[in-house]
Amino acid sequence: MEGREEDVRVGANKFPERQPVGTSAKTDKDYRELPPEPLFEPEELTSWSFYRAGIAEFMATFLFLYVTILTVIGVSKSSSKCATMGIQGIAWAFGGMIFALVYCTAGISGGYINPAVTFGLFLARKLSLTRAVFYMVMQCLGAICGAGMVKGLQGSSQYELLGGGTNVVNHGYTKGDGLGAEIVGTFVLVYTVFSAVDAKRSARDPHVPILAPLPIGFAVFLVHLATIPITGTGINPARSLGAAIIFNKSRAWNDHWIFWVGPFVGAALAAVYHQVIIRAIPFKSRD
Amino acid sequence: MEGREEDVRVGANKFPERQPVGTSAKTDKDYRELPPEPLFEPEELTSWSFYRAGIAEFMATFLFLYVTILTVIGVSKSSSKCATMGIQGIAWAFGGMIFALVYCTAGISGGYINPAVTFGLFLARKLSLTRAVFYMVMQCLGAICGAGMVKGLQGSSQYELLGGGTNVVNHGYTKGDGLGAEIVGTFVLVYTVFSAVDAKRSARDPHVPILAPLPIGFAVFLVHLATIPITGTGINPARSLGAAIIFNKSRAWNDHWIFWVGPFVGAALAAVYHQVIIRAIPFKSRD
Amino acid sequence: MEGREEDVRVGANKFPERQPVGTSAKTDKDYRELPPEPLFEPEELTSWSFYRAGIAEFMATFLFLYVTILTVIGVSKSSSKCATMGIQGIAWAFGGMIFALVYCTAGISGGYINPAVTFGLFLARKLSLTRAVFYMVMQCLGAICGAGMVKGLQGSSQYELLGGGTNVVNHGYTKGDGLGAEIVGTFVLVYTVFSAVDAKRSARDPHVPILAPLPIGFAVFLVHLATIPITGTGINPARSLGAAIIFNKSRAWNDHWIFWVGPFVGAALAAVYHQVIIRAIPFKSRD
Amino acid sequence: MEGREEDVRVGANKFPERQPVGTSAKTDKDYRELPPEPLFEPEELTSWSFYRAGIAEFMATFLFLYVTILTVIGVSKSSSKCATMGIQGIAWAFGGMIFALVYCTAGISGGYINPAVTFGLFLARKLSLTRAVFYMVMQCLGAICGAGMVKGLQGSSQYELLGGGTNVVNHGYTKGDGLGAEIVGTFVLVYTVFSAVDAKRSARDPHVPILAPLPIGFAVFLVHLATIPITGTGINPARSLGAAIIFNKSRAWNDHWIFWVGPFVGAALAAVYHQVIIRAIPFKSRD
Repeated sequence: MEGREEDVRVGANKFPERQPVGTSAKTDKDYRELPPEPLFEPEELTSWSFYRAGIAEFMATFLFLYVTILTVIGVSKSSSKCATMGIQGIAWAFGGMIFALVYCTAGISGGYINPAVTFGLFLARKLSLTRAVFYMVMQCLGAICGAGMVKGLQGSSQYELLGGGTNVVNHGYTKGDGLGAEIVGTFVLVYTVFSAVDAKRSARDPHVPILAPLPIGFAVFLVHLATIPITGTGINPARSLGAAIIFNKSRAWNDHWIFWVGPFVGAALAAVYHQVIIRAIPFKSRD
Repeated sequence: MEGREEDVRVGANKFPERQPVGTSAKTDKDYRELPPEPLFEPEELTSWSFYRAGIAEFMATFLFLYVTILTVIGVSKSSSKCATMGIQGIAWAFGGMIFALVYCTAGISGGYINPAVTFGLFLARKLSLTRAVFYMVMQCLGAICGAGMVKGLQGSSQYELLGGGTNVVNHGYTKGDGLGAEIVGTFVLVYTVFSAVDAKRSARDPHVPILAPLPIGFAVFLVHLATIPITGTGINPARSLGAAIIFNKSRAWNDHWIFWVGPFVGAALAAVYHQVIIRAIPFKSRD
Repeated sequence: MEGREEDVRVGANKFPERQPVGTSAKTDKDYRELPPEPLFEPEELTSWSFYRAGIAEFMATFLFLYVTILTVIGVSKSSSKCATMGIQGIAWAFGGMIFALVYCTAGISGGYINPAVTFGLFLARKLSLTRAVFYMVMQCLGAICGAGMVKGLQGSSQYELLGGGTNVVNHGYTKGDGLGAEIVGTFVLVYTVFSAVDAKRSARDPHVPILAPLPIGFAVFLVHLATIPITGTGINPARSLGAAIIFNKSRAWNDHWIFWVGPFVGAALAAVYHQVIIRAIPFKSRD
Repeated sequence: MEGREEDVRVGANKFPERQPVGTSAKTDKDYRELPPEPLFEPEELTSWSFYRAGIAEFMATFLFLYVTILTVIGVSKSSSKCATMGIQGIAWAFGGMIFALVYCTAGISGGYINPAVTFGLFLARKLSLTRAVFYMVMQCLGAICGAGMVKGLQGSSQYELLGGGTNVVNHGYTKGDGLGAEIVGTFVLVYTVFSAVDAKRSARDPHVPILAPLPIGFAVFLVHLATIPITGTGINPARSLGAAIIFNKSRAWNDHWIFWVGPFVGAALAAVYHQVIIRAIPFKSRD
């Protein structure tokens, strides 16, 4: 029955999946799916690699907020937005940092740098609940420190004048628009992450594991191009929280729930889409 | 006669092809060409992977239109186009999304996301007629939903004011100019796709299968840089149809045929160029 | 004496070269240098792959000029250069096309698309004189057709008004400045090409053969960022010739020699630097 | 005791580190750490590869300064900054050159092109003191020549008017702000370099050695996006020194110490973070 569980209906294996970007189709089960992580594994808490992973998530989120919020402030401060780089430059800062940081930390902690990504992969049981909660806390702490560092460099009066890089639903859009934009935006990101970590795809398409951090970074870049005019683009609750805490004006807090609910819903939908539709994992027997 | 059919004229194998980007030339037939797909294979219709592939094409085209049309609307809406990102940002949105989506869906459905690409690869018999038609229908449905989602976010009065991201032949150009731009633009894209899926090249140049989604995305980006001033750049009939149906004013429909005829002609020329000139496949015996 | 010729001085092999980007050093000769090509090999002329390679160079240079000159014209035509993409967008068009076209044609013809690159690699005996001359002729023909196609789309009065994308030494610079900029610019490009085709590096650093087309495209992009204000950036005599022939005004011809002499001198210097300094090939015995 | 030193606490190996971007976890020690370099090895001085590496560092830093300072001058000279490419284009020039030059020289000299990177890797004993000092001298000489070449092309009166691409703490920021920005900016760069040269990660994640030059180039690009408004972005003492010597006005020298102290402190912190926290190398026995 090896390789049988691959497809839901009998006979499906007669038609190997299309793989036009350069690989020959393989019909046998040529990959190894990692078993689902337990919800809580107490021994994990005694390993150094667990805490090191948390430190790596803290540091990555710290650097992410530092570079991106500093870029946003630089654009806001410029008298002539033209002479800076406008929305495109801001989008590059967010997407490029995610590319570089996923490259650097993927092998240490998984390179999540985002509570919504952590939540999506937790739903697919790629990490334990303990680890997911620990990562989210470290990501939020890193984000607060990163935004605080920017405030320190710019001086707090300047920083508050320039908006502090907070996420709000912009004038001309309803809260529903903002929520929708956050849901679909996070879906794009988490769907790309799921494609990059798919053991089956990685075994068959050589570009999947090798390019991995690049499309993840591009997904972040593209969602920023599209939704900066609507919400400033969150799709990362730690980034929204860090900026809001350091800015700390009611304007930043009024819509803040949108930047938690939206990303978590988007991540859950991406997890369902990838695990149920694309991989049909609930319909497979495991052995 | 192994490796003999490689070149049309006798003696050609004495001169192995140049491969200056890092691989040693190999004179024996070291790759496996997949056999051509039948026009219609009824059993395909009973496999889950067939329908899953269609869903993946739908979802990819949906996300493609959502992100790109939202970006176009954001630029149109901005009072100062300078402060947004202008044509370059729009071109990145189109090319970047194709990069990310080809990365994500290549292993599921082939990652076409475009009826013209589907048509070109069908001519080369890389997929069956059944599958090609099914994909095109799903791509068009996805595109309509993606553009519709943008209209929902922006409100329909706003959306119509801003042009809705439709493709038209711009002022100062004739219909012939627009058709020519669409033909050559689609040729660039489909020629790149053929280069990326070439089994012979993939076996010899390690960069061909590994980088594959990146030059395909860049081809889309570059054609947008060049032809946005002429037609807004279609080179994807599903994208043009989705935007036109949701916008639904006569302005969008007058030139609409150009965005089907142009891409299909360009894709057919690319298929002929790659299969006949570059690979000389009609002159080879198959065994 | 295996591996002995690696370095010029005795004892050098005791100190394997640094390879900090991830590979373990290997001290034995673990690569195969292709033998130098003869100046003239008559049998080459009877192989189909020779003519196919010429067609591929023609087509690549045609598409290169079409997309890039169309982009240049689009920027020139725009009433508000801000709303287009300025110099950065033009630089992306040139660099991006070289990336995509090297990716597509490297395995067919070597992917030169540039007489200066062809000349540099001929000096290093990577291709025969016959092939080098044939390629240069095909590249120039392709460039003329590509620029002609743009003129056809834009109408000849428009095209001439907008400068036709020709290379001239801009106001405020001497002919010597222009020549210097072309020499160093072509050096950057051809030096990158030599690094990408280096058999020794390819065998040791996995990123060399796999990323190859990307740094070559980036080199073109970067030289354009730096020298568009000086000469419009040639570094490719076919590109300069094609634009000058189709534009055909004395302004385009006055400085035209600079865009042949500069690139050929730069390519020759890069060949000397790579073959003599970096690889020390003249000092090695071959066996 | 094979693989035992991997983690600091007993039991850690029971929990293999997360590697979600596509690789299966391996619990045995599957990589080889190069032994630390001695401080001074006299025989190194008699090998040709040592001097060749120095020449490669000189040439790379020369081309780096030439292209980047020329780009900066081009933006400063333009009457309408909009029509050029502003800060984003300058950031691409710096980051893109580092990408291309690391790609070209990584296999020859290690591709440092930066005294701060050299210092960071020296602290981790990846190169000897002799080599580190020799590289830094060659990098500074190359930078001076590269900036000098730009002055030659532009004419010295023009060059001085336009600021010569020097690094200074801009109006509105204190010296402490500038120092902080340089420290964190260099940390981002050197942390990315350490991740790219990590033997353990390279053995496990296929994207680490293959993509290596790309995230390093992106790190430079991103730090420039963020800190050009503050200091013009140094993070490379050779680049700051070369520009200052050729410009040679007191304005360039007043803050010059910041562009040595900041990058060296940032590099040292990155070395400590990677070697002590991430790799826990001081706690491991070597065998």
